[in-house]
Amino acid sequence: MIIRHRSNPIIKPGDVKPSIEGYKVIGSFNPGATNFGDEIVLLVRVAEGCEPRKGYIRTPIYRFDDNGKGYPDIMEFDVSDPEVIPKDTRTVVYKGREYLTSLSHIRIARSKDGINFKVDDAPFIYPENETERYGVEDARITFIDGKYYITYTAISEDSWATALAVTEDFRSIERKGLIFYPENKDVAIFPERVNGMYVALHRPNNTRFGMPAIWYSESPDLLHWGNHKCIARTRDNKWESQRIGAGAPPIKTPEGWLVIYHAKGDNSVYSLFCMLLALDEPYRVIRRASVPLMTPTEPYETAGFFPNVIFSNGIAERDDKIYVYYGASDETTNVAITDIESLLESL
Amino acid sequence: MIIRHRSNPIIKPGDVKPSIEGYKVIGSFNPGATNFGDEIVLLVRVAEGCEPRKGYIRTPIYRFDDNGKGYPDIMEFDVSDPEVIPKDTRTVVYKGREYLTSLSHIRIARSKDGINFKVDDAPFIYPENETERYGVEDARITFIDGKYYITYTAISEDSWATALAVTEDFRSIERKGLIFYPENKDVAIFPERVNGMYVALHRPNNTRFGMPAIWYSESPDLLHWGNHKCIARTRDNKWESQRIGAGAPPIKTPEGWLVIYHAKGDNSVYSLFCMLLALDEPYRVIRRASVPLMTPTEPYETAGFFPNVIFSNGIAERDDKIYVYYGASDETTNVAITDIESLLESL
Repeated sequence: MIIRHRSNPIIKPGDVKPSIEGYKVIGSFNPGATNFGDEIVLLVRVAEGCEPRKGYIRTPIYRFDDNGKGYPDIMEFDVSDPEVIPKDTRTVVYKGREYLTSLSHIRIARSKDGINFKVDDAPFIYPENETERYGVEDARITFIDGKYYITYTAISEDSWATALAVTEDFRSIERKGLIFYPENKDVAIFPERVNGMYVALHRPNNTRFGMPAIWYSESPDLLHWGNHKCIARTRDNKWESQRIGAGAPPIKTPEGWLVIYHAKGDNSVYSLFCMLLALDEPYRVIRRASVPLMTPTEPYETAGFFPNVIFSNGIAERDDKIYVYYGASDETTNVAITDIESLLESL
Repeated sequence: MIIRHRSNPIIKPGDVKPSIEGYKVIGSFNPGATNFGDEIVLLVRVAEGCEPRKGYIRTPIYRFDDNGKGYPDIMEFDVSDPEVIPKDTRTVVYKGREYLTSLSHIRIARSKDGINFKVDDAPFIYPENETERYGVEDARITFIDGKYYITYTAISEDSWATALAVTEDFRSIERKGLIFYPENKDVAIFPERVNGMYVALHRPNNTRFGMPAIWYSESPDLLHWGNHKCIARTRDNKWESQRIGAGAPPIKTPEGWLVIYHAKGDNSVYSLFCMLLALDEPYRVIRRASVPLMTPTEPYETAGFFPNVIFSNGIAERDDKIYVYYGASDETTNVAITDIESLLESL
């Protein structure tokens, strides 16, 4: 059993202050999550668009001046130009290249009870180099040996890749660069080493012979990754036909590593599923649910910026409960509460 | 100056014995190259199709039996089935998924003079596991500390990735698994460590915001790779507009690491270019040629299985000359002869 909280959505775009004058917060969603002291900390993805101007599509972008110093700016596309082709709410094509209609950054939100969050006024991880020009998205937090390792999607003209950063206090942060080259996202690092190696799930793209799937990799140092294996693929059902990717870092249980993953199915509906990986061989799926843990049903899940999306990249354990934080419709942050027994039973 | 040898093509499909009865060699191209003893050894990509059958597209494929044991087989597509869509000479689409019309493996060819080669009767690297189901392609050979490290493209339903194998004698070979997850190819490992780390160039895919480009990565052990950086992108000229990728392992010169790379330009024409990377910072391009080193002009380059392709992934140094081996039109192996001074002058 998993129960959506009655206060959902718990963080809405209107709760978040824009990072820059002239920007407009259009999404506060897909949070990473962790316990930190007596609080639950979320790393919320804040997507910002621009105040509208008639006749133009306007999007924030990170630019560089002649000295290589970066600064946020606004890019304008004249809709009367035949080379400007709006693709969907998220994307515009100009001269054959895609641009995002929003620029995302990562913002901290803190809560004592896991439901009522206070969002920082300032960004925590903001685009700051060439690999992050089109934004930073979808943080995942793994606590290992006293440090919080944060993976996030870095987007640029070189497509989307995954960067690593580390913090001990959720005030300062140290960037470690790209650990998974494009096109790759949904990187969830396990909370402990397995057979002496760090372990992660990730999702390379697959544009040719199959669909994007969940892969396993190992690292001696969290920076260099190898021994790549595809461990779970899409299935021919209405929920999982298009792509699947890992959610939050796996939870260790006596029966195996419990993974909540997302699946994109028919009609671009995103749902959550569970699977279980072998404790000593986490590249081996030992059980996989046949029906979703959650699929969009509530108004905030079936309507919004990009409707019919439930996407989770953060969970927190508290008082024997699992708080599953999730983005709905690429717009809001929500929470559903369950426990390990329920998740294992769903398999 | 670079001079095509008058004996080109030096290896043609007809020179190669099929690996299996019922298969038909349609390409012997894109060789990796190295000096080995007093010989030059090529690792030729051998592409095999099937003997034709009226009303069908037939393609070799690597299958697995119920015990997980692999075996080569033939897949048939009924051309009267509306779900069967031939895409080009290389690809057929069935029920929305792509399949190759050929299965490639790697074959050894040996020569005393670098021009006249004898091709082994049996394959050297043959598809043998799930990651290689659709073939192994485009080997690159790097000699480091007494061993020959071979990278090659492994193709499967999980798309194309790069595997590593190692040999000391070009008789036995040890597979090391995937070192670059999909979608990635054109992996050229440098012949020595730089600042204590192994270094490679590679080419991730870029389906969204730009074009596929040349990336740099580092490894402590050749198995785990990180510190990924995009170092050279496509340019707005007719030769390099679509994608670029590294060729053979870089050549160390006093002026920098010399790289011969391939570029796909307008009308899908593939050419070769040179660039120079800083010796101590091989992620920094210090010079890049403005015109191609070679572009298709000869009949064997402008006609063939997939016309207008010059693609090099193997070179060998001998008597102060550089033998640039290259595939033409995805069909034959050829050689052009130059020297380091000429290559540096072309920059």
